Amino acid sequence: MTSDPVRLGVAGLGRAFMLMVPTFDADARVKLTAAAAPRAESRAAFEEQYGGVAYATVEDLCADPSVEAIYIATPHQMHVDHVLAAARAGKHILVEKPLAISMEDAETMVAAANAAGVHLIVGPSHSFDPPVDLAAQLIASGKFGQLRMIQALNYTDFLYRPRRPEELRTEEGGGVLFSQAIHQIDVVRRLAGGMGEKIYAMTGAWDPKRPTEGAFTALMNFEGGCVANLTYSGYAHFDSDIWMNDVGELGQLKRAGAYGDARRALMDLDPDDEARLKTTRTFGSGKTVDAEHNEHFGPVIALCDRADLKLTPDGVEVFGDTERSFIEAKFGPAPRRTVNDALVAAVRQNRAPVQTGAWGLASLEVCHAILQSASTGQPVDLRQQCKTSEEEQTG
Amino acid sequence: MTSDPVRLGVAGLGRAFMLMVPTFDADARVKLTAAAAPRAESRAAFEEQYGGVAYATVEDLCADPSVEAIYIATPHQMHVDHVLAAARAGKHILVEKPLAISMEDAETMVAAANAAGVHLIVGPSHSFDPPVDLAAQLIASGKFGQLRMIQALNYTDFLYRPRRPEELRTEEGGGVLFSQAIHQIDVVRRLAGGMGEKIYAMTGAWDPKRPTEGAFTALMNFEGGCVANLTYSGYAHFDSDIWMNDVGELGQLKRAGAYGDARRALMDLDPDDEARLKTTRTFGSGKTVDAEHNEHFGPVIALCDRADLKLTPDGVEVFGDTERSFIEAKFGPAPRRTVNDALVAAVRQNRAPVQTGAWGLASLEVCHAILQSASTGQPVDLRQQCKTSEEEQTG
Repeated sequence: MTSDPVRLGVAGLGRAFMLMVPTFDADARVKLTAAAAPRAESRAAFEEQYGGVAYATVEDLCADPSVEAIYIATPHQMHVDHVLAAARAGKHILVEKPLAISMEDAETMVAAANAAGVHLIVGPSHSFDPPVDLAAQLIASGKFGQLRMIQALNYTDFLYRPRRPEELRTEEGGGVLFSQAIHQIDVVRRLAGGMGEKIYAMTGAWDPKRPTEGAFTALMNFEGGCVANLTYSGYAHFDSDIWMNDVGELGQLKRAGAYGDARRALMDLDPDDEARLKTTRTFGSGKTVDAEHNEHFGPVIALCDRADLKLTPDGVEVFGDTERSFIEAKFGPAPRRTVNDALVAAVRQNRAPVQTGAWGLASLEVCHAILQSASTGQPVDLRQQCKTSEEEQTG
Repeated sequence: MTSDPVRLGVAGLGRAFMLMVPTFDADARVKLTAAAAPRAESRAAFEEQYGGVAYATVEDLCADPSVEAIYIATPHQMHVDHVLAAARAGKHILVEKPLAISMEDAETMVAAANAAGVHLIVGPSHSFDPPVDLAAQLIASGKFGQLRMIQALNYTDFLYRPRRPEELRTEEGGGVLFSQAIHQIDVVRRLAGGMGEKIYAMTGAWDPKRPTEGAFTALMNFEGGCVANLTYSGYAHFDSDIWMNDVGELGQLKRAGAYGDARRALMDLDPDDEARLKTTRTFGSGKTVDAEHNEHFGPVIALCDRADLKLTPDGVEVFGDTERSFIEAKFGPAPRRTVNDALVAAVRQNRAPVQTGAWGLASLEVCHAILQSASTGQPVDLRQQCKTSEEEQTG
């Protein structure tokens, strides 16, 4: 019984699900048995490919007794209703980051999962990337001494990917804070042990046509003394993948000659056209990505007493006192197998992952603290952090 | 008469002077006519190579009527006495960064130069690098819109280069703040227009055997709204020159297989041995560096509304909205010709450079503010900043 595939229902067949398709398709430990989506084309495509039932509402999906766990890949602002519905139905939950937009919603969701006795996993996020996991283990082992500083930076075209209008409104979870900073925060918290103490930050909203935060820069202190420097720009100019061996965020080799494609595709589109363009990237319409390397979220360097650890899409470069070496983090067979690892461990072995609801809430707190610090010009104390230790998270 | 070479006296024939030798040797606009140094070997080597008089003291050098200007390349803590002596003697002054260690000394020096009616130039520093100058001009032209953010980072082996004991004591100007942060501050101030408003920072002193700051990270706000992210580690682990086309700080191609050399050379040396090792890098003993590219101070990205400008050792990469291009910043003929440009303009045309005494004092203020912010955990307001505009600086 314990080796049976986890029977997973998918809530939302948009871009987020698309990015998980290669993982589900390549991993027999998880079986997609049902789905929910508002668009009939997506539902038909799901039923044709996976043979299960595709419902029109998440509530109907939650009522399906064949489903053990629900992967909630709906837009950010719907997470709270869908997590509560899944918890009420007694299903384990894998919910896309960010857990929620408001802290109140996040707290409600964590409480609901606890009350229902179901696992709440916040993922995928780049804290699941195998090189991040490897670096976290190397740091925790103590073999390189104390972790002192982390530098994380990422320059992408995020703001110019096709968006629905609300994705360009910060208060509804739009902009780079809730969709992108959350990854970087997850990564540095995973490396530094999770317990942020305070953060000081500035944000930038520089394009009046897309009036939400497109960039930020922050310094974050951790329990134990480590400081993390986080910088992000989604303005589609410099692309930091050139410092990641020309491998893109999803582990794919970057296409030469693609410079400027994101901005060019949006030129002269009105918001309706753009929302329509976005649907061409959903399940049943879009193409999945062929990854050849692990995913990543830009250059990350972790400075320890006796080595700097630099993450690459294939592992960790160790810059020691007198020697330089490389430790591989194996890719595949499923691109995001570590997300499935967490799901299977939770459902089959009752083992909580690092990225619990409490973890996701702590990362969300940091997003809000970045906005608050940028607005006040002062450092903001963090009060709802949690540790990475799996022992501490199991409950 | 105005095209006669500037007759320059050199105070200090150590490592700093060594790094200027290729520039002086390749530029007929400046003639080395005298020097001062405590070590007889250095004096003899100078007289043999340049034919002028090498004095035992800076005071004697200042009294030499053949000298029009003095290049002060003595240890940081001696700058104040030597600048005052040169000003008293009515000589124009080129003084190595940092201008001084204490703000009081710096203020005294600026006042003395003003009272004597001589130019005080703080340099060389990496704000003189031609790609920095080019980027500053591109930004000031407004063709890419407003400057929004600067990210500057540098990972070097600074802390493990041979040091005299005081170079490892912060209060005497040791550590990365006064010798290295000052470069990064100069560069970002040059790009952002000079007028810092406040800074928030953390520093790291992680090696008990070399108990001074070896790293820092900071966020600095500028008048006009730009924020700069400055990060530096001199702990000889990761080397960010791999992100600068494998060109080193001095414009030289990096030697393959040199990883770990800096730390290895110091192993098992006591402080006396190490100070002796340092003298092997001075004039008459050491070798000059063969530069093939402009100098640099690590990766720098300037984010503007319509392009990110990324500095390289050979120019500026422009990542525009839909096109990517490269603008060359010519190297040579003298590696640091822009320093001589400033010296000749000041002495022959009474034209002040960007890097005046007031400029150097403003950059020094930022070094102290970094230490203060790291100590208090709070942002520090800057009160002695000045603009880059040459018009504003002349006087």
